[in-house]
Amino acid sequence: MVSLRFSAGLRPLARAAVLAASLLFPGLATPVLAQAVDPLPSWNAGATKTGILDFVKATTTPGGPDFVPPADRIATFDQDGTLWVEQPVYSEVAFAAFRVKALAETNPTLKTEEPFRTAVSGDEAAMGRLSFPDMKKILMLALEGLTVEEFRAAAEAWMATARNPVLNRPRTELTYQPMKEVLELLRANGFRTYIVTGGGQDFVRAYSEKLYGIPPEQVVGTADAVRFGYDTSGRPVLRMEPAVLFDDLFGGKPEGIHLVIGKRPIAAFGNSTGDRQMLEYAKAGKGLHFAALVLHDDGKREFAYGPAQGLPASEVGTFTQKLYDEAKARGWYVISMKDDWKKVFAFEP
Amino acid sequence: MVSLRFSAGLRPLARAAVLAASLLFPGLATPVLAQAVDPLPSWNAGATKTGILDFVKATTTPGGPDFVPPADRIATFDQDGTLWVEQPVYSEVAFAAFRVKALAETNPTLKTEEPFRTAVSGDEAAMGRLSFPDMKKILMLALEGLTVEEFRAAAEAWMATARNPVLNRPRTELTYQPMKEVLELLRANGFRTYIVTGGGQDFVRAYSEKLYGIPPEQVVGTADAVRFGYDTSGRPVLRMEPAVLFDDLFGGKPEGIHLVIGKRPIAAFGNSTGDRQMLEYAKAGKGLHFAALVLHDDGKREFAYGPAQGLPASEVGTFTQKLYDEAKARGWYVISMKDDWKKVFAFEP
Repeated sequence: MVSLRFSAGLRPLARAAVLAASLLFPGLATPVLAQAVDPLPSWNAGATKTGILDFVKATTTPGGPDFVPPADRIATFDQDGTLWVEQPVYSEVAFAAFRVKALAETNPTLKTEEPFRTAVSGDEAAMGRLSFPDMKKILMLALEGLTVEEFRAAAEAWMATARNPVLNRPRTELTYQPMKEVLELLRANGFRTYIVTGGGQDFVRAYSEKLYGIPPEQVVGTADAVRFGYDTSGRPVLRMEPAVLFDDLFGGKPEGIHLVIGKRPIAAFGNSTGDRQMLEYAKAGKGLHFAALVLHDDGKREFAYGPAQGLPASEVGTFTQKLYDEAKARGWYVISMKDDWKKVFAFEP
Repeated sequence: MVSLRFSAGLRPLARAAVLAASLLFPGLATPVLAQAVDPLPSWNAGATKTGILDFVKATTTPGGPDFVPPADRIATFDQDGTLWVEQPVYSEVAFAAFRVKALAETNPTLKTEEPFRTAVSGDEAAMGRLSFPDMKKILMLALEGLTVEEFRAAAEAWMATARNPVLNRPRTELTYQPMKEVLELLRANGFRTYIVTGGGQDFVRAYSEKLYGIPPEQVVGTADAVRFGYDTSGRPVLRMEPAVLFDDLFGGKPEGIHLVIGKRPIAAFGNSTGDRQMLEYAKAGKGLHFAALVLHDDGKREFAYGPAQGLPASEVGTFTQKLYDEAKARGWYVISMKDDWKKVFAFEP
């Protein structure tokens, strides 16, 4: 059943009309009203915006050749670099570094031994140049021995005050407004929106509902090994172990989608080589499918990196020319932040 | 949001009234009407039936001390022995044995080498006496190399005609009518119902929607390792590997719940030692929780096994006296099939 949600683009009067309708007829979807105003106001007119709107219309028009029943309207979104800022380093690494710094108070070798020394330094640009295995060492140390509740509380507390050191803004403000409009548009049309992230599933779950309206059970991510046991008072607890059960990157993304959702998405959004297989998998299904990659080509409002299209190379969120060429060859949309997005962040005037 | 569902127990006139109301006010839940008739007609009056009804009322009464918001109304159900028959052997083992028998046509050593010889024999009682590691060998051989779509098609095809050799009925008819009423009652009251099974996630997903109204994304199970790759025509595929990624039994059940759902259930149902940790975990949360175990004490209508309460021991669905005592000590309900269930199966008069 299509649930009623407000499009971010509804003007006050339209919102009031929708609200009145929802009070009189709870659960009654009002797609006609919702489409009376632009559901993607932060997008510039162009092929990508049109492509998104056409895809939603085609898959939700009853009786149409591309109609998809609501149960199969699954859309998957990478998080870092697709829904929010990932430069100069993934938020999760910054969070883990913050915890490692605290651990270094009682374990001074962390201040001298790499990669922990870099974590303790607080230099996020340097963290962004670490290899994935080194980042993983920092992540594993930061969560070891915590119960899942303790980890979540720590992540929530950190996120409440954490700032991006380059953009000098709270991290929670650094979600992409155009992508949030896509999430809203899809949900208003009966889609379920999932995050499928290379980041830690438990970390992303700590804020996904607040930031994106995506509940814990719709977050597929790299899963830390979690062990059932009992605490000293005999109470059953789930404790995090310094090991990865499941790597949700590259081929791991479709594997993770199968593990948690068990259905092939009909729309997939990403921004890096780690998302390639997810997009290939989504597009290989029967019927109409949508795939898009965000290209970070806007050094003024956000960051410019690739190395596709002559952009500077980056360890974080690598978008190769090969991936760009595959996207073009396969009919995936490449979203230019510079050209396609009127606004990147909600706080812009 | 509470979606409108028909309780299996609604009489024709009440159903018509609910239908009329649903046409006039789509999406409007009608718990009052739904409770005008018994939502659990296959249950005998008694402490367990009352316990279930009281729990649902307490957790869904707005403003009440035990009210739980819909987003947190998660109920988890073991499958084999809790929602349907598991004797003389788990359906999945019977399915795998069927596939191994076909493989033996071209690989005759399977006809002589244990545990495959037992699988090829078709003797389900003998299969039920195999150890878990031996059952796993049969399961792994049966799925090796299949794409997830091929596996699903094979499971669906087998399930369409498979019969239980002792009860001599189609397996799809051997779901427990009283438990299906509990599923319906919970969903009619805004709960999301999950299967959390030691059985293979992909196997159970092949029929869970048809049999229980539970979609693939609400099946947590033992997960086979699945590998992303490309077929000979370059099409991306997910192929099953003869390895287990995740064992969803014992402590693995709460771990699996955390992995896939990310929330603690407020109600949990099981029937064997493999469910113990799931029930402990559910009951250890804050607020009101419900836990119950099905005791198979009805050898006339189904099977009698334990070894709790002097029932015969069984490798399949072991319910020890220790588990029974823990249930009583912790306030878990023990559902007596003999005493609590008016009807076991829908086909009974």
